[in-house]
Amino acid sequence: MESLNHHEISQLMLSLAVLLGFSRLLGEFARKLQQPSVVGELLAGVLLGPTLLGRFAPEWHAALFPAQGHVAVVFSGMTTLAITLFLLVAGMEVDLSSAWRQGAVAFKVGLLGMLVPFIVGFAGAWFTPRLMGAHADADHLIFALFFATALSISALPVIARTLMDLNLYRSDLGMVIVSAAVFNDLVGWIVFALILGLMGSDGNSGGTIWLTIILTLAFSFGMLTVGRSLIHRILPYIQTHTHWPGGVLSFAFCITLLGAALTEWIGVHAIFGAFLVGVAIGDSSHLREQTRSTIDHFVSFIFAPLFFGSIGLHIDFTAHFDVALVATVLAIACTTKLAGCWAGAWWAGMSRRHRWAVGFGMNARGAMEIILGLLALQAGVIRMRLFVALVVMAIVTSMLSGPLMQRVLARRRLKNVAGLLNSERFIRSLRGRTRNEVIRELAAVACSGTSLNVNDVERAVLQREETMPTAIGNAAALPHSHLDGLTFPIAAIGLSEAGVDFNSPDGVPVHVVIMILTPHRDSAVQLEILADLAGLFRSPGVLEKVQRAADFSELLAALKTEENFEIDGEKKTLGSSIDGTALVRN
Amino acid sequence: MESLNHHEISQLMLSLAVLLGFSRLLGEFARKLQQPSVVGELLAGVLLGPTLLGRFAPEWHAALFPAQGHVAVVFSGMTTLAITLFLLVAGMEVDLSSAWRQGAVAFKVGLLGMLVPFIVGFAGAWFTPRLMGAHADADHLIFALFFATALSISALPVIARTLMDLNLYRSDLGMVIVSAAVFNDLVGWIVFALILGLMGSDGNSGGTIWLTIILTLAFSFGMLTVGRSLIHRILPYIQTHTHWPGGVLSFAFCITLLGAALTEWIGVHAIFGAFLVGVAIGDSSHLREQTRSTIDHFVSFIFAPLFFGSIGLHIDFTAHFDVALVATVLAIACTTKLAGCWAGAWWAGMSRRHRWAVGFGMNARGAMEIILGLLALQAGVIRMRLFVALVVMAIVTSMLSGPLMQRVLARRRLKNVAGLLNSERFIRSLRGRTRNEVIRELAAVACSGTSLNVNDVERAVLQREETMPTAIGNAAALPHSHLDGLTFPIAAIGLSEAGVDFNSPDGVPVHVVIMILTPHRDSAVQLEILADLAGLFRSPGVLEKVQRAADFSELLAALKTEENFEIDGEKKTLGSSIDGTALVRN
Repeated sequence: MESLNHHEISQLMLSLAVLLGFSRLLGEFARKLQQPSVVGELLAGVLLGPTLLGRFAPEWHAALFPAQGHVAVVFSGMTTLAITLFLLVAGMEVDLSSAWRQGAVAFKVGLLGMLVPFIVGFAGAWFTPRLMGAHADADHLIFALFFATALSISALPVIARTLMDLNLYRSDLGMVIVSAAVFNDLVGWIVFALILGLMGSDGNSGGTIWLTIILTLAFSFGMLTVGRSLIHRILPYIQTHTHWPGGVLSFAFCITLLGAALTEWIGVHAIFGAFLVGVAIGDSSHLREQTRSTIDHFVSFIFAPLFFGSIGLHIDFTAHFDVALVATVLAIACTTKLAGCWAGAWWAGMSRRHRWAVGFGMNARGAMEIILGLLALQAGVIRMRLFVALVVMAIVTSMLSGPLMQRVLARRRLKNVAGLLNSERFIRSLRGRTRNEVIRELAAVACSGTSLNVNDVERAVLQREETMPTAIGNAAALPHSHLDGLTFPIAAIGLSEAGVDFNSPDGVPVHVVIMILTPHRDSAVQLEILADLAGLFRSPGVLEKVQRAADFSELLAALKTEENFEIDGEKKTLGSSIDGTALVRN
Repeated sequence: MESLNHHEISQLMLSLAVLLGFSRLLGEFARKLQQPSVVGELLAGVLLGPTLLGRFAPEWHAALFPAQGHVAVVFSGMTTLAITLFLLVAGMEVDLSSAWRQGAVAFKVGLLGMLVPFIVGFAGAWFTPRLMGAHADADHLIFALFFATALSISALPVIARTLMDLNLYRSDLGMVIVSAAVFNDLVGWIVFALILGLMGSDGNSGGTIWLTIILTLAFSFGMLTVGRSLIHRILPYIQTHTHWPGGVLSFAFCITLLGAALTEWIGVHAIFGAFLVGVAIGDSSHLREQTRSTIDHFVSFIFAPLFFGSIGLHIDFTAHFDVALVATVLAIACTTKLAGCWAGAWWAGMSRRHRWAVGFGMNARGAMEIILGLLALQAGVIRMRLFVALVVMAIVTSMLSGPLMQRVLARRRLKNVAGLLNSERFIRSLRGRTRNEVIRELAAVACSGTSLNVNDVERAVLQREETMPTAIGNAAALPHSHLDGLTFPIAAIGLSEAGVDFNSPDGVPVHVVIMILTPHRDSAVQLEILADLAGLFRSPGVLEKVQRAADFSELLAALKTEENFEIDGEKKTLGSSIDGTALVRN
């Protein structure tokens, strides 16, 4: 049997490690700068590819990422698989039922937000194909269709993440944007699948094209109706009769691979099948949050970085960077998408601010654009310089989306609790022995570096405390207040070894005190933070870890992991935390 | 760049889907028969390989699982990666610190349990290599060393799972067995790595052999000391500064791949590096349970089935099945391992029953044996018929381990709560309006099909109820009792729409009543079940789902998933569930 030899295995493991390591490192860095991680992952590939490593150390580049031979073939197979799984996850984020509930508004925004870029893009590509970077051999119609689709498709994963960061995901505005993007994605991918069908049949046989188109539409329709309801019926059986979560996990993978094999066989790409399987499986109530997050984590943190990192490995980005084309593509993409969404939002009767927010939100192209471009490049429809321009456009639109929405809605990015803290607002050992002393101590550090007055803060917090004690049991208290002068939330944390009486419901002295000050106009932020913290301290072991924290870094570690654990599952609200109270008696 | 074409991608996806689907299906089936899932996964490969599919539909076999070409190469790369990750997980199960605490006892059992099979196996292979299935070209010494190692190594993952099934994992006996297996595994793998080093250098250059041996020992020692403590120090930093759990997940993968690349480069196999990285990373307290289970789920339910399934794909098991050799290998393996462990346990002063239990427990060879055999086969040290004999031996010893331990310890396999129920013990709508009426109703169904007397059961449960109410809050009550006549636990469940007063701590009427009857001598089982159920009903949403269950199958689905969710994390004890009580006040 043909297999890898000793040297090739070593080479494969090393190159996977290097690519994964670099992609994740730069991906994390991008996130620190509040950018989508795909930006960093792409950059890693560019740095490891001919653009940088290949230029200055060509022998290293060739040894790590060979273009021929067994290792190259395995890499190609694995990245294909990685992108297939990535599309599964992207599909799983599509919530058809709630998109349906948004109804007319989402439809109007989605339709116009798709049509305007499509028509303008089609016209531009049809009349000036060379200017737009068409491949010399490319079919005129196929190129124009591709270019139009590339401009009109949105990146649901990036949009969803941006909305979550801005704490807008569950708002009405957020649901409209997400639902419009769902509509946009679904239609866009089906159109793109049709183009792939046209490409695959090379335009030389009319019969094959029609067969491909009919099969593609039949598959899409079948998967979203019969397939979807079949999957929703099979899932509970699998949960009942198999070892959880293995059964569901394997089932999801198997049907994804089958869907991918089928669409690839039809003549459209494997990822299209994976995407539709993701949509079909994604909104089943039987797909548990933990199964979902197992798939999501593995794909987001292992497969996606490998795929996006691999894109730059064999493409020289500087050599194919065409400033004029980049500027043209970027300008058309942004203006048409903005105009389309704005018009759709206006048609649906949304407020002026929201029209702009919808436009900026939908403008993010992210990973989807790049995948589309790569397929078109491989199929010989576009030239390298258009691919590079599409990648740049995707990155720029994704990076702008969050900040622009933030600006137009005047909304601050919701920080997680750990993000509100800094080492100057952490008191390792509180000196105070009474509640009031402790609150005064914390108020002092909370105010440092702000224009707040310590006495005002102290008074406001104490007043709130008198109204109703903020001890949440389990040796923690969360004194808090809204404040007028603030524009962003502040938290200060203090540990008391002796314990302080905070009138806690369980009568236990309080050892961890976290003071939370929030802007007056933004009451939702305060509720979110309090709910997060309450959830955090309900998890067993957190209190001990926080109390044992010797320095700020250890404190962050204790808070961060648990807190994200909470957020990964369904976010708990104040209501559900009260339900969760149960005493075990034996 | 060399990559897969359209047809190959479709073929790859389809063959992965078929292999994964079959492996998991038969794996689940094996688990239903209370056997390790690896048994079913191996069988899937055998059925899809030349043994069955290749015999009756050779063109299908060739189309799905080609032996040459791009798809074969990708398959080879992916299975190598799969087994590398499987060894990472196997390594992560090795808990060095607690193995160390078992000290002398585990050492004695581990040492003799390893030495006896090693010496007997070495002697047999040295004096009668052809009889034992040595390859004609194989080096005499290398073959004897391999054969000896193959007989003496244990399968920690199988052993650990068997002990968990028997509810022995946290017992003293369980810890001794696991620790001895850890010792056994570590030493065995290092010896095997040395043999691989000898193989790799082909015996023709003394210098290279010594270099390989020195590098292998240096890597092992370095990884378990400096490497381990370095990893334990880096992990908290990664948790603090990266997006959880992505940072830790990627870090674990990167160092695994690096370790694999390094050991493969040294000349021993990639999996050895992955195993040691697993050991080093596994007992860090900073590796959170959820990260661990994400890796574990993906590897156990996706990668491992693909690897074990792939083994049979190109090997004809019937053609190479040599009854005499199978019987010889099986007999030597079982007798020497049993004798060695028995002697070790006797030396350590263990009781007579425990000596046998240790022997039966350690006898499981499982996946490790098969991996060892496959590497030796690929390296040309053993013949196909010995490989088949080793696979059979591994399967048989793994299958016998649990039942034999169970018999010698007279211990019933602990069933999970859902496993205790059956549709006859489920009352969809309780007729009773008072506590006593409801208990009588449930006692009646609990006793059906047993020799228990309803009145006795009712009296015992009520007596227990009078001593202390068993309502656990959150609208659930768990009336229970130890009973003399019982040999296994029984549960009955009833739903009440109107609600029944059970003196619950929160004053809420009880809607879900689960009666638990356990054998008198086995108080641990009762505690476990109660703790599980209490944990279950603390999770938000479970109560609603259970109440809404229209039939037994829906009830099972609701109980099963949530229950396993609890078990996947750290199993909560009664103590910790009381800690978890917190009221959120705002």
